[in-house]
Amino acid sequence: MNEQATYTVDPWGLREIGFDAEDPARSESLFSLSNGHIGLRGNLDEGEPHGLPGTYLNSVHELRPLPYAEAGYGYPESGQTVINVTNGKLIRLMVDDEPLDVRYGELRSHRRSLDFRDGVLVRQAEWESPAGQVVRVTSRRLVSFSQRAVAAICYEVESLTDSPRVVVQSELVANETLPARIGDPRAAAVLESPLIPELNFARDTTVELVHVTRHSQMRVAAAMDHVIDGPGSIGVLSECEPNSGRVTVTGILKPGQKLRIVKFLAYGWSQQRSLPAMRDQAAAALVAARATGWEGLLDEQREYLDAFWKRADVEVDGDAEVQQAVRFALFHVLQAGARSERRAIPAKGLTGPGYDGHAFWDTESYVLPVLTYTSPGAAADALRWRHSTLKLAQERAQLLNLKGAAFPWRTISGEECSGYWPAGTAAFHVNADIADAVSRYVNVTEDFEFERAVGLELLVETARLWRSLGHHDLDGKFRIDGVTGPDEYSAIADNNVYTNLMAQKNLRAAADAARRHPDRAKEFGVDSEETASWRDAAEDMYIPFDENLGVHPQSDGFTGHELWDFERTRPEQYPLLLHFPYFDLYRKQVVKQADLVLAMQRRGDAFTPEQKVRNFAYYEGLCVRDSSLSAAPQGVMAAECGHLALAHAYLREAALMDLHDIEHNTSDGLHMASLAGSWIALVEGFGGLRDHGSVLAFNPRLSEGLSRLAFGLCVRGRHLRVEVTNSAATYTVQEGEGITLTHHGERFHVEPNLPLTLNIPPAPRREHPRQPAGREPRFFHTPTDPEDD
Amino acid sequence: MNEQATYTVDPWGLREIGFDAEDPARSESLFSLSNGHIGLRGNLDEGEPHGLPGTYLNSVHELRPLPYAEAGYGYPESGQTVINVTNGKLIRLMVDDEPLDVRYGELRSHRRSLDFRDGVLVRQAEWESPAGQVVRVTSRRLVSFSQRAVAAICYEVESLTDSPRVVVQSELVANETLPARIGDPRAAAVLESPLIPELNFARDTTVELVHVTRHSQMRVAAAMDHVIDGPGSIGVLSECEPNSGRVTVTGILKPGQKLRIVKFLAYGWSQQRSLPAMRDQAAAALVAARATGWEGLLDEQREYLDAFWKRADVEVDGDAEVQQAVRFALFHVLQAGARSERRAIPAKGLTGPGYDGHAFWDTESYVLPVLTYTSPGAAADALRWRHSTLKLAQERAQLLNLKGAAFPWRTISGEECSGYWPAGTAAFHVNADIADAVSRYVNVTEDFEFERAVGLELLVETARLWRSLGHHDLDGKFRIDGVTGPDEYSAIADNNVYTNLMAQKNLRAAADAARRHPDRAKEFGVDSEETASWRDAAEDMYIPFDENLGVHPQSDGFTGHELWDFERTRPEQYPLLLHFPYFDLYRKQVVKQADLVLAMQRRGDAFTPEQKVRNFAYYEGLCVRDSSLSAAPQGVMAAECGHLALAHAYLREAALMDLHDIEHNTSDGLHMASLAGSWIALVEGFGGLRDHGSVLAFNPRLSEGLSRLAFGLCVRGRHLRVEVTNSAATYTVQEGEGITLTHHGERFHVEPNLPLTLNIPPAPRREHPRQPAGREPRFFHTPTDPEDD
Repeated sequence: MNEQATYTVDPWGLREIGFDAEDPARSESLFSLSNGHIGLRGNLDEGEPHGLPGTYLNSVHELRPLPYAEAGYGYPESGQTVINVTNGKLIRLMVDDEPLDVRYGELRSHRRSLDFRDGVLVRQAEWESPAGQVVRVTSRRLVSFSQRAVAAICYEVESLTDSPRVVVQSELVANETLPARIGDPRAAAVLESPLIPELNFARDTTVELVHVTRHSQMRVAAAMDHVIDGPGSIGVLSECEPNSGRVTVTGILKPGQKLRIVKFLAYGWSQQRSLPAMRDQAAAALVAARATGWEGLLDEQREYLDAFWKRADVEVDGDAEVQQAVRFALFHVLQAGARSERRAIPAKGLTGPGYDGHAFWDTESYVLPVLTYTSPGAAADALRWRHSTLKLAQERAQLLNLKGAAFPWRTISGEECSGYWPAGTAAFHVNADIADAVSRYVNVTEDFEFERAVGLELLVETARLWRSLGHHDLDGKFRIDGVTGPDEYSAIADNNVYTNLMAQKNLRAAADAARRHPDRAKEFGVDSEETASWRDAAEDMYIPFDENLGVHPQSDGFTGHELWDFERTRPEQYPLLLHFPYFDLYRKQVVKQADLVLAMQRRGDAFTPEQKVRNFAYYEGLCVRDSSLSAAPQGVMAAECGHLALAHAYLREAALMDLHDIEHNTSDGLHMASLAGSWIALVEGFGGLRDHGSVLAFNPRLSEGLSRLAFGLCVRGRHLRVEVTNSAATYTVQEGEGITLTHHGERFHVEPNLPLTLNIPPAPRREHPRQPAGREPRFFHTPTDPEDD
Repeated sequence: MNEQATYTVDPWGLREIGFDAEDPARSESLFSLSNGHIGLRGNLDEGEPHGLPGTYLNSVHELRPLPYAEAGYGYPESGQTVINVTNGKLIRLMVDDEPLDVRYGELRSHRRSLDFRDGVLVRQAEWESPAGQVVRVTSRRLVSFSQRAVAAICYEVESLTDSPRVVVQSELVANETLPARIGDPRAAAVLESPLIPELNFARDTTVELVHVTRHSQMRVAAAMDHVIDGPGSIGVLSECEPNSGRVTVTGILKPGQKLRIVKFLAYGWSQQRSLPAMRDQAAAALVAARATGWEGLLDEQREYLDAFWKRADVEVDGDAEVQQAVRFALFHVLQAGARSERRAIPAKGLTGPGYDGHAFWDTESYVLPVLTYTSPGAAADALRWRHSTLKLAQERAQLLNLKGAAFPWRTISGEECSGYWPAGTAAFHVNADIADAVSRYVNVTEDFEFERAVGLELLVETARLWRSLGHHDLDGKFRIDGVTGPDEYSAIADNNVYTNLMAQKNLRAAADAARRHPDRAKEFGVDSEETASWRDAAEDMYIPFDENLGVHPQSDGFTGHELWDFERTRPEQYPLLLHFPYFDLYRKQVVKQADLVLAMQRRGDAFTPEQKVRNFAYYEGLCVRDSSLSAAPQGVMAAECGHLALAHAYLREAALMDLHDIEHNTSDGLHMASLAGSWIALVEGFGGLRDHGSVLAFNPRLSEGLSRLAFGLCVRGRHLRVEVTNSAATYTVQEGEGITLTHHGERFHVEPNLPLTLNIPPAPRREHPRQPAGREPRFFHTPTDPEDD
């Protein structure tokens, strides 16, 4: 039964029926478990067959040289790559003489399911060995939200036929052989055997392994302990070697009898702490987990998730796939950010080695908006991580002949790891994206202690960057030349509108925050001359506009460039970057991903409604969506411009990115930004949430295909719930005090537990914008889909 | 006497007195001998001490991978690097027990001289061995202009004291150990032992070695033979091994007696021919050389050079350094191009491994203008080489999604070897530079057979490139976006004026040439619609102009960029590219090298005199001359704009680039373009030669420091000589028919051998332009210099 696996569309979980031994990597990503601290790919208990074995610890990486055919001043010379650490997921089973391997014997049934409410991956398999023994294996796996250093597996085997001798080997294995990966530059570089053994220890049911990475000198301790429950005389043996450790359990199972092993797994890592300290740290976590017990861990997990869903759940009626997908998305965004705690949230979370495990602007621009409204503490922690890398960013700015801080385009621990500066270093907007995330967090939470301790310095140092990066021209306009905006099919252009508008906001936010915390600002050397210079630069910010076309050029001169020849571009030539040189892409009107459209989403206050409609239509005709970051902002702006069916299609594309493996690289890990984007497309798109000003604004309006949308937001200590139907929206303060909001431009106040329902004005009629030939959104919603009933 | 060597200022030669054992590499470059086919650095006969041993065969290279931290579509993956081939210069001497080594014993005197009229490097050394024996060694070395595969050395040793036994070992050595070279990306990559031995043979006075390169599979045959003349009983022994061969000559020299060895050296190389064929080829060249004999080779060399100087000599009165330098320059340009014969002329000629031995646009833009007027056959051959690489250029264009041919930015054998596309592939102007060289050659020589056979196709294919690279905007302007002009401190800009004007000329020249050869054009698929589209594109070509400043921006938007902070840039921070990131340089107003100024030189017809003066002054304030390609065009335009003392300073900078080692990298090889630039600065600057139209134009005007300038030009089968004084210019047709020219805008006709003298109008008074602080030209001429009398 090694056919293609199928996934069911369930509102609260992901269920796989069957097993695809030919291509297991996609399911491994989809079934990844993580708490932001530890990440386990959904590999089978027995390890094989695998697509990509993966166990990741947030920030544990190795260094690799970044080579250049022609070197240049300021090029980063050392890159960081996430590594697959000691695998503690492994539990192998021998039934009489035969190892359980789904490729041999007969796999009678195989099901995996992940319920987003309990956070446990359940696997049920019935397997007949080549010799005819039939066993049922049930394993349940969790990575604890409550105990961040801990994962646990409850592994049960039951004999259905004869009375076989079963041998269960629970393992820790370091330096697993990884499949060679080629071709796609986005895939992670493979590093062979990155872990140098330092210690191995086995006693009773416990094994400990400590390793250190060769170049980055990160010490990693892994430890496991077991609770074993089975009939009759159970033998237990533990052994270890430098790169592996094993606890072997053996017994004879009569039909109907079960052997149950609970495996507790703990990790610790540090670049500074000593071997004994790391060993103790892992051992202590293990003791705590064992004391909590499997049931205790399940309870804690459920409690953590209950609280999350209570404040954050999104309900979607009318599109069952989106209902599933947005909960899948929220679950994985939570997994990526919940316990990152001053470490980066990578573009793939801890679900795979894609993009070398780097964090990009995606985090602040896509993931943090979701966390800010659903798990604000996690958003604050992610920004504390940025703040912890401030010194590196200041050094980078200095190297670049700039002031303030220049945060890296891609990194694991704060150093710039981008090996192609036109699409890396030059993409300075990451700094404004970080500042924007700070402003949003403070605006939404009113956490002024955070602002004082962390946010202000981030705002000040990024404002300083912009002030030194831009300059006033002879006409008094403040220009930012030679930078790269979000669209990676353009680079090194003058006055990218997104960049300039975000920098403008950054400069003003820094000046405002300095006024709120004058004593603290003074500590950073900020005086009123400096804040005035920020306000002046913001005021004078040059935003190009093409009067002839009546649209904003993405950057100076963009609308004069040659149009990409979409008609002659064949379907197999997408993504364009794999079939055309940057040279060709950069100089023509072709857009990889929302750029000006993203500017309109983030800085809607800087555009008139008419400009939004014209700009949106213009850039729809140029955008090929070769980036998974594009569909969500396009969905938001499509909704705002009244193209509701189109907004729904973009929502679906963002939401189904991984579930449908749209870009054929879900195997490398999940697209966190696109997952977060599905929430954004729903809440900012159909919910119409905007947080530009001090009062939260809602302009809800559903597409025809949706009959109801409800979502929860954490705002200034309150739990706000918004429910939208085709005709009206209902605002409810479920926790906390009353709040003033706007609904389609009208200000209103809602008191606690007194839901307020307001009518939704009809949508304007708009001409449908056209996309490039062959790049129209593919996921238009058809309400007659069988999943939708 | 291992102090610093000194060079004398002689009108017809370069003389070194003393020897600098600490830093011999600069002299090795200056004393390089070459005929464009073979190049021998001026290493000592005995091989050591050396700065950089160097024997180069035009086009013999090895391949090396070009690595990228982040790969991209269309990036070249294989680079080409010139290699040091089998060294045949070596002649070692043992005096009794002591090897002649200038670092030991006492070097009583050491002189080397290169007379540009006879093309022979003469070395005279008197050396006292540690044991007190004194010998005088005189070696004379030539690389034959008449027999291109041949070099020869006449080595004489004379005893001045006792009667020592001398042993002379004449060698061929392959795979010499090269000094490690680090840091400067411009220096060649070192390739260890690139030659795989295929054959070694020794008999009587002959040795042959054949090797093949590992990756590029180029077969190199080297052979030597000797004529030995000495007193008494002379012993001769020949031996060989895979990587070396030796002919040993021994005898006893009484005081005053001489041992004289003439060493004939021949090379052959091919990527296609077999081992026996290559061996025979070298042996045959050797037989011819031996038959000619040493004196015969000297006579042929002198004859070749007499003819060259007769047509090409430049006389400069009033600046003795420039007089020497321009003859040094002409000699080396001739050496680089004389016998290249359908192989590239690298940026460093065959004088060193700098720039990996690559040819750039320098060849067509700097070297070919000189050769066109002084050795037109060599210019034609250089363009035939480009033509031979047309297929590769067409493939490259296709890869870049363009039509026609895209010639490489840097190459040895035609493949693009640039590992940084913003300053490589994007610098498309190289294609117009090639077309311009074709147009100039045909215009100056009226060699329409060449145009028909070679030139037309180059013009057509480059015109097609431009037509596909540019596009018409909505206003009907033809724009060329996203390219890099000559200035390497800007990149990927729209409508670079130099590029657009040169493309305009290219498009028109192609259409004109197609009209001259309609049948041939038809073979290339050219029809009248296509030529009309070229003319239209040329007519519609967009040339940006800044109305506020009244100057041309180098590219769209350039004059709006922030000015580089020259005041805060410290002297040690030049060249800027080694101390600031490209990101910073590209986005500001700072110019590495003449770009808009070069446009005014090459396309003077496209600017008004007032624009030239304003533009020149503006760009003088921005240009830091971090490129050796800059001084010459600045000199030419300074002269045209009436800044004659400044023009003289730039002339001196171009002329003394290597003699004064201005950029501290003469050790890597001579700057051919700057050498050629000294001729350009004199002939186009003070001679005021312009060849935009069908009638050659002269606008001669000397600086105060010069009292007379005379130069010879080959024009349409004539030898034209122009003599300029402070008050008048005299035009003489020395060979061939009369010719019509212009002098300061006035048309005149000059008949054969009837010199015509015309007055020079006074120079306009202009305000002195200012250069960036600290980057003013350093080589202002002071007529009271001791060398100048």
